Amino acid sequence: MAFEQVENQNSLNEECGIFGVWGCDDAANLTYYGLHALQHRGQEGAGIVANNNQHLWQERGLGLLGDVFRDPQRIKSLVGTAAIGHVRYATAGSNGIENIQPLMVNFSNEQYALAHNGNLTNAKTLRKELEESGSIFQSSSDTEVLLHLIRRSKAETFKEKLIEALNTVRGGFAFLLMTPTAMYAALDPHGFRPFVVGQMPDGQYIVTSETAALAVVGARFVRDVQPGELIKIDDNGIAIERYTENTTLNIDAMEYVYFARPDSNIYGVNVHNARKRMGRTLFQEHAVAADIVVGVPNSALSATAGYAEAAGLPNEMGLVKNQYVARTFIEPTQERRERAVRMKLTAVPDVVGGKRVVLVDDSIVRGTTSKFIIRMLREAGAKEVHVRVASPAFRFPSFYGVDMQTTEELMAANHTKEEMRQIIGADSLEFLSTEGLVAAINLPYQGAGTGLTTAYFDGHYPSPIYDFQASLSAWEARGEVDFAPEPTTTYSPTQVRTLAKQDLHLEGEQ
Amino acid sequence: MAFEQVENQNSLNEECGIFGVWGCDDAANLTYYGLHALQHRGQEGAGIVANNNQHLWQERGLGLLGDVFRDPQRIKSLVGTAAIGHVRYATAGSNGIENIQPLMVNFSNEQYALAHNGNLTNAKTLRKELEESGSIFQSSSDTEVLLHLIRRSKAETFKEKLIEALNTVRGGFAFLLMTPTAMYAALDPHGFRPFVVGQMPDGQYIVTSETAALAVVGARFVRDVQPGELIKIDDNGIAIERYTENTTLNIDAMEYVYFARPDSNIYGVNVHNARKRMGRTLFQEHAVAADIVVGVPNSALSATAGYAEAAGLPNEMGLVKNQYVARTFIEPTQERRERAVRMKLTAVPDVVGGKRVVLVDDSIVRGTTSKFIIRMLREAGAKEVHVRVASPAFRFPSFYGVDMQTTEELMAANHTKEEMRQIIGADSLEFLSTEGLVAAINLPYQGAGTGLTTAYFDGHYPSPIYDFQASLSAWEARGEVDFAPEPTTTYSPTQVRTLAKQDLHLEGEQ
Amino acid sequence: MAFEQVENQNSLNEECGIFGVWGCDDAANLTYYGLHALQHRGQEGAGIVANNNQHLWQERGLGLLGDVFRDPQRIKSLVGTAAIGHVRYATAGSNGIENIQPLMVNFSNEQYALAHNGNLTNAKTLRKELEESGSIFQSSSDTEVLLHLIRRSKAETFKEKLIEALNTVRGGFAFLLMTPTAMYAALDPHGFRPFVVGQMPDGQYIVTSETAALAVVGARFVRDVQPGELIKIDDNGIAIERYTENTTLNIDAMEYVYFARPDSNIYGVNVHNARKRMGRTLFQEHAVAADIVVGVPNSALSATAGYAEAAGLPNEMGLVKNQYVARTFIEPTQERRERAVRMKLTAVPDVVGGKRVVLVDDSIVRGTTSKFIIRMLREAGAKEVHVRVASPAFRFPSFYGVDMQTTEELMAANHTKEEMRQIIGADSLEFLSTEGLVAAINLPYQGAGTGLTTAYFDGHYPSPIYDFQASLSAWEARGEVDFAPEPTTTYSPTQVRTLAKQDLHLEGEQ
Amino acid sequence: MAFEQVENQNSLNEECGIFGVWGCDDAANLTYYGLHALQHRGQEGAGIVANNNQHLWQERGLGLLGDVFRDPQRIKSLVGTAAIGHVRYATAGSNGIENIQPLMVNFSNEQYALAHNGNLTNAKTLRKELEESGSIFQSSSDTEVLLHLIRRSKAETFKEKLIEALNTVRGGFAFLLMTPTAMYAALDPHGFRPFVVGQMPDGQYIVTSETAALAVVGARFVRDVQPGELIKIDDNGIAIERYTENTTLNIDAMEYVYFARPDSNIYGVNVHNARKRMGRTLFQEHAVAADIVVGVPNSALSATAGYAEAAGLPNEMGLVKNQYVARTFIEPTQERRERAVRMKLTAVPDVVGGKRVVLVDDSIVRGTTSKFIIRMLREAGAKEVHVRVASPAFRFPSFYGVDMQTTEELMAANHTKEEMRQIIGADSLEFLSTEGLVAAINLPYQGAGTGLTTAYFDGHYPSPIYDFQASLSAWEARGEVDFAPEPTTTYSPTQVRTLAKQDLHLEGEQ
Repeated sequence: MAFEQVENQNSLNEECGIFGVWGCDDAANLTYYGLHALQHRGQEGAGIVANNNQHLWQERGLGLLGDVFRDPQRIKSLVGTAAIGHVRYATAGSNGIENIQPLMVNFSNEQYALAHNGNLTNAKTLRKELEESGSIFQSSSDTEVLLHLIRRSKAETFKEKLIEALNTVRGGFAFLLMTPTAMYAALDPHGFRPFVVGQMPDGQYIVTSETAALAVVGARFVRDVQPGELIKIDDNGIAIERYTENTTLNIDAMEYVYFARPDSNIYGVNVHNARKRMGRTLFQEHAVAADIVVGVPNSALSATAGYAEAAGLPNEMGLVKNQYVARTFIEPTQERRERAVRMKLTAVPDVVGGKRVVLVDDSIVRGTTSKFIIRMLREAGAKEVHVRVASPAFRFPSFYGVDMQTTEELMAANHTKEEMRQIIGADSLEFLSTEGLVAAINLPYQGAGTGLTTAYFDGHYPSPIYDFQASLSAWEARGEVDFAPEPTTTYSPTQVRTLAKQDLHLEGEQ
Repeated sequence: MAFEQVENQNSLNEECGIFGVWGCDDAANLTYYGLHALQHRGQEGAGIVANNNQHLWQERGLGLLGDVFRDPQRIKSLVGTAAIGHVRYATAGSNGIENIQPLMVNFSNEQYALAHNGNLTNAKTLRKELEESGSIFQSSSDTEVLLHLIRRSKAETFKEKLIEALNTVRGGFAFLLMTPTAMYAALDPHGFRPFVVGQMPDGQYIVTSETAALAVVGARFVRDVQPGELIKIDDNGIAIERYTENTTLNIDAMEYVYFARPDSNIYGVNVHNARKRMGRTLFQEHAVAADIVVGVPNSALSATAGYAEAAGLPNEMGLVKNQYVARTFIEPTQERRERAVRMKLTAVPDVVGGKRVVLVDDSIVRGTTSKFIIRMLREAGAKEVHVRVASPAFRFPSFYGVDMQTTEELMAANHTKEEMRQIIGADSLEFLSTEGLVAAINLPYQGAGTGLTTAYFDGHYPSPIYDFQASLSAWEARGEVDFAPEPTTTYSPTQVRTLAKQDLHLEGEQ
Repeated sequence: MAFEQVENQNSLNEECGIFGVWGCDDAANLTYYGLHALQHRGQEGAGIVANNNQHLWQERGLGLLGDVFRDPQRIKSLVGTAAIGHVRYATAGSNGIENIQPLMVNFSNEQYALAHNGNLTNAKTLRKELEESGSIFQSSSDTEVLLHLIRRSKAETFKEKLIEALNTVRGGFAFLLMTPTAMYAALDPHGFRPFVVGQMPDGQYIVTSETAALAVVGARFVRDVQPGELIKIDDNGIAIERYTENTTLNIDAMEYVYFARPDSNIYGVNVHNARKRMGRTLFQEHAVAADIVVGVPNSALSATAGYAEAAGLPNEMGLVKNQYVARTFIEPTQERRERAVRMKLTAVPDVVGGKRVVLVDDSIVRGTTSKFIIRMLREAGAKEVHVRVASPAFRFPSFYGVDMQTTEELMAANHTKEEMRQIIGADSLEFLSTEGLVAAINLPYQGAGTGLTTAYFDGHYPSPIYDFQASLSAWEARGEVDFAPEPTTTYSPTQVRTLAKQDLHLEGEQ
Repeated sequence: MAFEQVENQNSLNEECGIFGVWGCDDAANLTYYGLHALQHRGQEGAGIVANNNQHLWQERGLGLLGDVFRDPQRIKSLVGTAAIGHVRYATAGSNGIENIQPLMVNFSNEQYALAHNGNLTNAKTLRKELEESGSIFQSSSDTEVLLHLIRRSKAETFKEKLIEALNTVRGGFAFLLMTPTAMYAALDPHGFRPFVVGQMPDGQYIVTSETAALAVVGARFVRDVQPGELIKIDDNGIAIERYTENTTLNIDAMEYVYFARPDSNIYGVNVHNARKRMGRTLFQEHAVAADIVVGVPNSALSATAGYAEAAGLPNEMGLVKNQYVARTFIEPTQERRERAVRMKLTAVPDVVGGKRVVLVDDSIVRGTTSKFIIRMLREAGAKEVHVRVASPAFRFPSFYGVDMQTTEELMAANHTKEEMRQIIGADSLEFLSTEGLVAAINLPYQGAGTGLTTAYFDGHYPSPIYDFQASLSAWEARGEVDFAPEPTTTYSPTQVRTLAKQDLHLEGEQ
């Protein structure tokens, strides 16, 4: 989506990326490179916790990974053969260092660290209960609830405590949890977020958000973590079990549309290829007579290629994005504010001049950027600008791990398509249909439903949303949104399958 | 060229970008945005000098523009209605703050600031002479020579002193010079570097390295600065004259191939379009049977589009570049060094697997990166990899403003094409011909020669190289390189044309 | 004591200084100046929490106050009309930012901040209990226990919860606790640490560690906080009550000897004057024939003046301390290590040459510095060096708020006085007697005992030491130390006396 | 003087301190410690240039030495066995990094670095001449003139060029000049500034501003540099010659009164002892009935001790200075400005209450601080405050190395003593006489005159002041100031005395 690249307020932001490794001499260094491959999932904070079997060491800070670890001493100080790391998108107002993950807690007798990608939908309720019975939270993050639940559990072993806690929280989560003796990975029962297992050439296991992070560190892909799974990795190898049998698959469709890297695969589907198919389907659904196709860089470039190929039109670089990052100042006048926007994106008169342009974007959030881009294209001489969006219109908020929990600024939630067209100043405006999106992703999924969460577009929420229910009550009253019931959870984790290394790549649970 | 993006040692680096404005309330702010658009021309230092008609104020520092001006106070402290700025690529060993431009000198009775894009070929000789007669240099930069020549001149007026100095230095230069009462711009007699005049909506003049910087600040393009021109801008407007009549046009062909932004125009030629034509010509010269075309991001993407369109093959995202910058550490093992490289660029198995790939790059310097990329593509499953380079092979060094003054590490200077192919591991390797390059650029130039400098490829140097002559003597002995004589200079600047604003956009000197 | 000034490892360090104000427009600024006056009590971290009646804002960091608040924006961001602040001495190994106070906790429905001067003697035991019932600590500081106790209390009101918590912790504490609606101050039942109430000219109340901090901000002294008191300050004024009736006064004698500023008064006794009396008494107890008296700057200068006056000898500047602070590097050789020490303190040959010198110090901890100073004096030509220490020898550790919890490196705990004299190389060595110290302080105290804690010197601990009992068991077995029982506490706070402003300065509870 | 400690604008500031060493393995580290001992001579910038016999390496920055070299890599990067360093007081407006010394110049074929303590009185004139013949200055510092004079000299050898330059500049200077092959030290013909030679235990030579810097690094004092001397130190040892025979001794009396450290000796006179004698003489000249004597810390403490001893009165700590440095903010109200002042200095009611106080200060510049201190003392209960100043009143400016070149803000230049008394609010006010000052310093000098510069007090300038003549013309017209003629200089340096190490300490030229 163009918006995020041009203005980073109120846009659609992924909440995080996580990476963990067990048994490597240079665990923190490996995690640094792995997190760099996930930087697109969170740019406002980064941290790594390393484990030297006796003690956990934490380094974290605000800003990009490269800023946080500018001093190489910070990586060097993270001694140990295991590590977990996190890159974070922080919502406004909660940008303190105490919210940067991995969170770490030190007890008199033990230490844990926790990294979380996702969003818990009952965290406020649980936090209130925990605080009422005396717990003190160090952060304002929903993630910390899990640590308190583990600590409060009366179960016998650490793993039993953890399973109890996993069965108490609701919403979207991919967790990595480090103790001095083991690393645990767990995915929520709906599989809202991508989460994969990889293996280094020497056999060490990695668990991380995207396959692109495996490639960077030279690891091969082993398998996707399945909804409801709990994985324990320690010096004895890897053990996979289910902490609940009540699972479905509802991977967030926006991972394919926008969040994930084009070189990542999610449940077997390559993201670049999926986006090309979205572009192709978009053309099939909404062809228009034009001279050239122009994509909004960088995120819409795959879909643009698909559209252009299907249309048989030249795919031209009519918009150029400045790949360097520099702060824009708070500018007092409209003229100077536009300067700040053009700093990031400009139109090329020699490319678009006199042309009928199909402008392909991956999504429209507030519309502000679309409006600006279209004006730039026209100033650069474009004769017509037809906007084609490679995803359906955003009409509803999300609560499973994306920072879009109100719809006040969501253009499509407050305007008809024709109003939107007029506001952004396009000659025509069309969106990919939800069906087209689902078909383009083409998830090799055999279960009930599509395997995808498309609530943003169609209001079908795969589970209740607890703390946020009030946000949707008006829509619910009008029958525009509906909620699948939460699968009934029972404390009946299945038998652990401790997998031999040679078996792992034969796994074909999908 | 891929190399620069992956490893920034010993690659081909542009020396600088410059930007100047006269008569704007927010001159330093405007310059900041303008320089950001030129960041690709120099990432190791940045500076701005502002002028409030009485005093010049300087702020400069090492690193990216955004790092140097992270504290907004630095921009605020640059008061005044005129400013010049500079982004710098610094060669190793001379990375002191004293070399960061604009250079500024304070006399008892006056101040100047100077920003320079290019490289003087007789600076060492001049410096030695000046030092012998008592001058002290504050920097190790060749640029400072001009300041001393002005100061030493016995001519009457400042402008006459400047003209005398401009007629003394040799090599490539686009200069911006600020005094409290005027801004001067001058281009060398060969026009080695791009240099353009623009105008703000309210009439204020800008002179800068690329048209892309005009677009960012909302200025319109007025005209290219011509070789041998001296432009004076002050509160009376703009005055253009020639400080010498002995000029030719020899714009560096690498500006079109690699240095300039795709959205810039140079002498009327859009860079993106020129690169597409290079790709198209490359296909015409060296077609090969293949399934897909993959470009090395970001610099080769325009040429790749041209090749793919001409070939009728899909243009696929088989290589993904991480757009975030983070330092790589000095890694002790080969395995970890490769991790550092993959951090920046990865191949996508789902895109290239089982395919015959045409890999389009813009140039090959040391070959190290090409070798690495080809290996990645093969590991990702590519069946064949045919390398097509959208410029001729680099066989000779450059001395007019690019950091490539020796050929020890220049692959094509030391190996045959077949040796290169074997070293990088390609199935085939072909380069665009020099003729093809010249034709693809298609410069609307009526004078003698091509209007381009192609010395890197063919050894035809458009002027003597003075301080560096020894570097080329062996080649010269073998007749592989030749030098055009320096045009005889005479102190006969033509009559000044003071241009009314309305006339300017009618100028069609080219 | 000389030691701290020359070497800051393993010396005798005060744990902290605190400052709070309610009802001032520039509360954070006032707190900044107040804390600066307390910088001698803690140099390794500083923080301020401000309160704008709705929200608490926290800024804190490692290092000196001036370093933490170098950026004036940090003070500006602390909006509100009330604030508490803290300067901290951090023991090695726990120097993380999470331990810098004021600690702040954010609940769903409320916020507190807490600043603590002192040391809790049962914190480890309490923490273990709290963790076992599910609490998670964010810091390794003993202070945090109080927050958890408040949170866990089943009492009705916040104040009742606080009183319950105050009756649960043991040891030395002066607490300042901020909530959005009130500021609380509480002193332990023994009054180990100084704690005073002051008032601004416009009537606003301040509570802080030393009267010197009142003077800096232009406040007048109102009264010393009494052992066992809980003070609540809010928009209704000040209310003082006792949270326990079981109190004694045992102010740490080292506050008079070394910790407090000479311009502070504690329980009515001016510290400079007390030190002069210590010096005078020291002469009376241990006169020696000499030519001049030299004090170890800066802390021994008051005692030195007292000794010199009593002896009728010239008080000479034979040692000069460099008032500027600069880091010393880790030096590889003995020669260079000595350079690092001389950087801070040098002897003056023209002053001490040929003289019989009485060297007055306030205390001897490890003896290393004394040895070094005596050698410097001899090298500077001193004929004799007679060391006179204005406090008794340290033989036992402390646990009520001073970083001296083992005696391994305590010279007097491991050597006879004669051995000490030989080690440090003095011609004679004498200490002030405990009786002499008590008499010199001359505390206007009518209760049982001396009103002072002199456990360092005589092993009489005014209360049990819980977590640390094992440290002293060998001594206890030999009968060298003894412990007064903890006063039986009952939850019977006395009636609150809400004081009118005009009454406060008439208070004469002492 | 109190003023500098409380407010650092417009006070009396020493211009610099310098330190150089030749032949030590850890030359930069040694220089760091040496400069720290000179920090009182300049707090606004610091720098070191090291010499590894082939190349000079420079590190410098704004602020205190400890801030500039906070990163230990900066010291480590200064490789070499020789080094010179500088601490600087910068006048307002010229606080750029380019003025921080040592200045360094890089020629094509050589490098020098220069550090200067003092002020050249004909620098503006010389600079104008040099600029007119084409020189460009990198700094606004007067020091740089010397480098240009050396460079411009037509003399044969480097030393001859240097001697010619030394004979061209006028005013006060102690220079240290480093080349890759030698270190040079030169003192002006009047000896305005202290400058001493020392020797390390292993024989290496040091030249520095004060003997206190020798003590810190473990060096012994060898001899004072004499007016007109040029010293060359290289691998062959030390060689001392005179670059002019026309010399007198006019050491600045303020070095004894205020600038130098109490533990330094200048021309054989210990500064602390001289100050005690000033205090004693002050009592003899201006006794007053009183109860206690209070000194303004830290600089007046020696004089205070002298006064108190002579008067037989107790020397009490009635004013306490906070030894920690922290920034004060720009405060909007008078009340808050006073807070900022009290942050640095407070009065002690328990010490001064009800007492008749003699307040001893070393000097009065603007009077602002005296006024503030007296008010604080009265608020603290002092019954009477009699101000006694241990130097004569400042009536005239200085031009030989002190930042006091106008008298607009000089209280004694604009008011009678009685007016001053009323303004500052003292019960009485008296100054030491110039004769008393000269007698108290008691310089063992046999030549013409006193050997001291006392122009501040009596208007007798030991030489013309060139660039600044206009400043004094009104006074000169009234006959209040007079100038000794500059000794006629001839280029006749005496024979070099190359001193064997064993001879050096036998030198008794004084």
